[in-house]
Amino acid sequence: MGYFASEIKTMDDLFVHTLRDIYYAENSILKSLPVMIEKTTNSLLKQALMTHLEETKGQVERLKRVFQLHGVEIEGVNCAAIDGIMSETDDVTGEVGDKAVLDAAIIASGQAVEHYEISRYGTLVAWAKRLGRDDCAGLLQQNLDEEKAADRKLTSIAETAVNRNAA
Amino acid sequence: MGYFASEIKTMDDLFVHTLRDIYYAENSILKSLPVMIEKTTNSLLKQALMTHLEETKGQVERLKRVFQLHGVEIEGVNCAAIDGIMSETDDVTGEVGDKAVLDAAIIASGQAVEHYEISRYGTLVAWAKRLGRDDCAGLLQQNLDEEKAADRKLTSIAETAVNRNAA
Repeated sequence: MGYFASEIKTMDDLFVHTLRDIYYAENSILKSLPVMIEKTTNSLLKQALMTHLEETKGQVERLKRVFQLHGVEIEGVNCAAIDGIMSETDDVTGEVGDKAVLDAAIIASGQAVEHYEISRYGTLVAWAKRLGRDDCAGLLQQNLDEEKAADRKLTSIAETAVNRNAA
Repeated sequence: MGYFASEIKTMDDLFVHTLRDIYYAENSILKSLPVMIEKTTNSLLKQALMTHLEETKGQVERLKRVFQLHGVEIEGVNCAAIDGIMSETDDVTGEVGDKAVLDAAIIASGQAVEHYEISRYGTLVAWAKRLGRDDCAGLLQQNLDEEKAADRKLTSIAETAVNRNAA
């Protein structure tokens, strides 16, 4: 999609490449979250995923603002990592019949997604600061904080509700 | 590899499937870490990756013990997520010429791997406890603790050495 890894020469190139990687990932998540919400039966979990869908829309807007602040074109690059996590999610959640077990599988998949994002945003915040882009770092930090909170929320729902029903 | 997602009916099935997923992932990491170590130039980073290679060997042994305790065959299932993360790692680190930028890219890839493992081990520990397998949970917790420590170590190296040189 116009920006290949072979063009990475500087920290700035690496920053922009990784920004495009997470931009692609967030857009993939926007498409897959409604499918997960549809499959979910636990009402607490369904609500948490719906809240996170709205948050994700805001995160994509923040990423667009980071591209603009940094003066580069808004575009994604293929992210094999999120494709792989999503493929695993489809594979596992597509075949589980028991509703409570399915909810447990959805939480596990959601947390794999959150942790991927936490790693990428953590990296991007650090690099933005090094590049003197505190404006970008601030926006990326907001996304990072939301992903960490979403991960903690999923842990809490798993522990208090879903795993108990599934086991 | 003998255990398809379509066979997942119970929490126990889901636990074993995810155990096989992380077993495949750890074995992939065992193969790719030496390549990363070879590419790394920063001595602190090289040492940290070498230490983690030894830890990873121990983690695979703990996973084998978990399979045995739980009375199931030791085998992996294809893990599209780790394949995707590794493919991205190869793509990005294969093309960066500048040594300091390459080290920064290696840390970012390493942290994506660590976070994938942290999410899977976190899930497995919770499920093992729910299934009444405190023996398995204890071993999985040891792997989880090591992955979290490895992630913190990479953050520390990035902040104190690598990013400063690369930016």
